[in-house]
Amino acid sequence: MAKFMDVHHGMAGITEEQLRTAHRADLAIQADEGVTFEQAWADPESGHVYCLSEAPSKEAVQRIHERAGHPADEVHPVPLIV
Amino acid sequence: MAKFMDVHHGMAGITEEQLRTAHRADLAIQADEGVTFEQAWADPESGHVYCLSEAPSKEAVQRIHERAGHPADEVHPVPLIV
Repeated sequence: MAKFMDVHHGMAGITEEQLRTAHRADLAIQADEGVTFEQAWADPESGHVYCLSEAPSKEAVQRIHERAGHPADEVHPVPLIV
Repeated sequence: MAKFMDVHHGMAGITEEQLRTAHRADLAIQADEGVTFEQAWADPESGHVYCLSEAPSKEAVQRIHERAGHPADEVHPVPLIV
């Protein structure tokens, strides 16, 4: 298992309710791929959304996001944490 | 006070020790601007570093990073968190 930070672009105008709904859609199916989404942060102005997860691979993270209807634009392993 | 996610590009090859040293340089002066750096995640392969902070403004975050010798490429307020 490893930590991943994924980034969604183009989400300008996202509301708290939309972020919550999207996150819940991930949580509902994340176990299928052994992924745990831990937290998500959104900037409605620039349209960036950052998701932190623990997962077996970046592909596993992306598969959950795709099935939940919001594929990530970037998925980065972040093995270094302070 | 608000939450911010800032991003550094071009840090490919960064080591755990370098990340720790850079983070400590931020912590040492963050109080000057009322900033609290909470966590940082690095991907040595792509060279992305993500820093989460609480601060009075994005300019305050950037001033600390600049004085510490590693200006951010992006600083985003992230008012929505799940």
